[in-house]
Amino acid sequence: MTFELSILGTGSAIPSFGRFSSSQVLHTHNKSFLIDCADGTQFQLRKYGIKTNRMNHWFISHLHGDHCFGIISVLSTMGMLHHTGDIHIHAHPDLAPILKAQLNYFCKDLSFKVHFEPINPLQNEIIYEDRSLTVSTIPLVHSMPTCGFLFQEKEGLPHLNRELLDFYHVGIEDMKKLRAGADFTTADGNIIPNCRFITPPTPPKSYAYCSDTAYSERIIPLIHGVDVLFHEATFAESEAFRTKETLHSTAKQAATIAQKAQVKQLIIGHYSARYADVTPLQNEAKEIFPETLLSFDGMQHKW
Amino acid sequence: MTFELSILGTGSAIPSFGRFSSSQVLHTHNKSFLIDCADGTQFQLRKYGIKTNRMNHWFISHLHGDHCFGIISVLSTMGMLHHTGDIHIHAHPDLAPILKAQLNYFCKDLSFKVHFEPINPLQNEIIYEDRSLTVSTIPLVHSMPTCGFLFQEKEGLPHLNRELLDFYHVGIEDMKKLRAGADFTTADGNIIPNCRFITPPTPPKSYAYCSDTAYSERIIPLIHGVDVLFHEATFAESEAFRTKETLHSTAKQAATIAQKAQVKQLIIGHYSARYADVTPLQNEAKEIFPETLLSFDGMQHKW
Repeated sequence: MTFELSILGTGSAIPSFGRFSSSQVLHTHNKSFLIDCADGTQFQLRKYGIKTNRMNHWFISHLHGDHCFGIISVLSTMGMLHHTGDIHIHAHPDLAPILKAQLNYFCKDLSFKVHFEPINPLQNEIIYEDRSLTVSTIPLVHSMPTCGFLFQEKEGLPHLNRELLDFYHVGIEDMKKLRAGADFTTADGNIIPNCRFITPPTPPKSYAYCSDTAYSERIIPLIHGVDVLFHEATFAESEAFRTKETLHSTAKQAATIAQKAQVKQLIIGHYSARYADVTPLQNEAKEIFPETLLSFDGMQHKW
Repeated sequence: MTFELSILGTGSAIPSFGRFSSSQVLHTHNKSFLIDCADGTQFQLRKYGIKTNRMNHWFISHLHGDHCFGIISVLSTMGMLHHTGDIHIHAHPDLAPILKAQLNYFCKDLSFKVHFEPINPLQNEIIYEDRSLTVSTIPLVHSMPTCGFLFQEKEGLPHLNRELLDFYHVGIEDMKKLRAGADFTTADGNIIPNCRFITPPTPPKSYAYCSDTAYSERIIPLIHGVDVLFHEATFAESEAFRTKETLHSTAKQAATIAQKAQVKQLIIGHYSARYADVTPLQNEAKEIFPETLLSFDGMQHKW
């Protein structure tokens, strides 16, 4: 299936140069997943025409305000718009009591239930699974318990050659057998080998979101070979000294992770408020990993 | 002194057509007052270059999310920017426990204190006073306890004629006496009547903010003759039937209040999400009260 990423905010903690803070939506063929939810996310959702009717699972990397202050507003607005379908918020367990107090006061008559799904950001584990994909945590290194998220499509079924199926008048039962690896026997007893009918399934898609984090090689095996890696790049190399104190990354560090993990595409973001122009960050990253894209508020990326 | 109003959001509960929800800043010569604080206010403050260093008193009309969800983000960001000077939040007492829980978790090391100043929205009373102005509550009619705010400059001192002071070599002590109403006696015993030195003080400025509210004539004596009235105008006349259920106003009702209260200028806003173009609301208001302005996000109005 196709993955389509909408990036709603690319700034870091202090908003600047018109950039909103962290929030993204990953769309698959029939679902949308909200990833982080900064203040103002509801405006960005509407500004960029993001449909929220199937956005029922939300993943919050950590409980800094620039990643979660917008949750109450999005819930409140979805309530006023009569959203149906329960919302599941996957987040550190500390979020639940704070948000429940707000929900109890401000959102008494929501048209849906809100379920808090506690996650352990320090452990790599599957936290969501449906017929077509899994979401697992990627433990990161930050000033509070933080994890990224790996969205991994499940392996699909092999493709069958439609023309050959028609030519041999293959029935539904035999198609199932072909998919399971069997050869096909014609009515007059000829055996047609399985490999003539079958082509491998479309490679499953994957997306890894890693923000906020200091440079951490421990994530490399967890994101190895993903199609798209979003990795925070708060600083340019000239500010590299600040990454130790703040536990953020430079663009060069993001690119080094992308290179070592052999990902196909890197998108950087979560820019410090000090950068009006972020192309130097892209340049620094591209020296290490040429397939680097700069994110911007409203960016859409499909694969 | 000069009043300058910055209107940061003109939408109502559901954001639409790029309009943020309710938030304004009133600037006087040395202070700024935040009035309501919807989700996203921190972005609007930065977008429109509003200085927050003297914005120490915040006034929250009521506890619907589109008037208060942005408070935590503005506090958090001001903390990161090392704001100094305590913040006083004047709001319904229900806000304090909810916001304190958020502050305790998300804003442990703020560079300033946050004081909750409980107000009774059902009573008309002065809730803030300094050397140059008072702020008083205006009880409104809405689906929860709600009040507007009247910002009223204090009467200034009468002006003294500088040329005449020089001509008669009037000293500081005599100036005080002139301001208090006394005549002036020259060194050779001539009496110069007070009225020759004195011109009346500049008329004090005033601003009334009334949102959210149903049509309520009870506010008329409280806002009589103000320079500028902001009155919500959620609906056009064609949707007037909705004001009873929602306890909002039409543009025509806002204009009727402005006319009956003999205010000098009316600004309408808090537009329903159904209106892409709000000029029909202005037209309906102007039929009753010609001095009506349409607010828009980023509007500045000075008097």
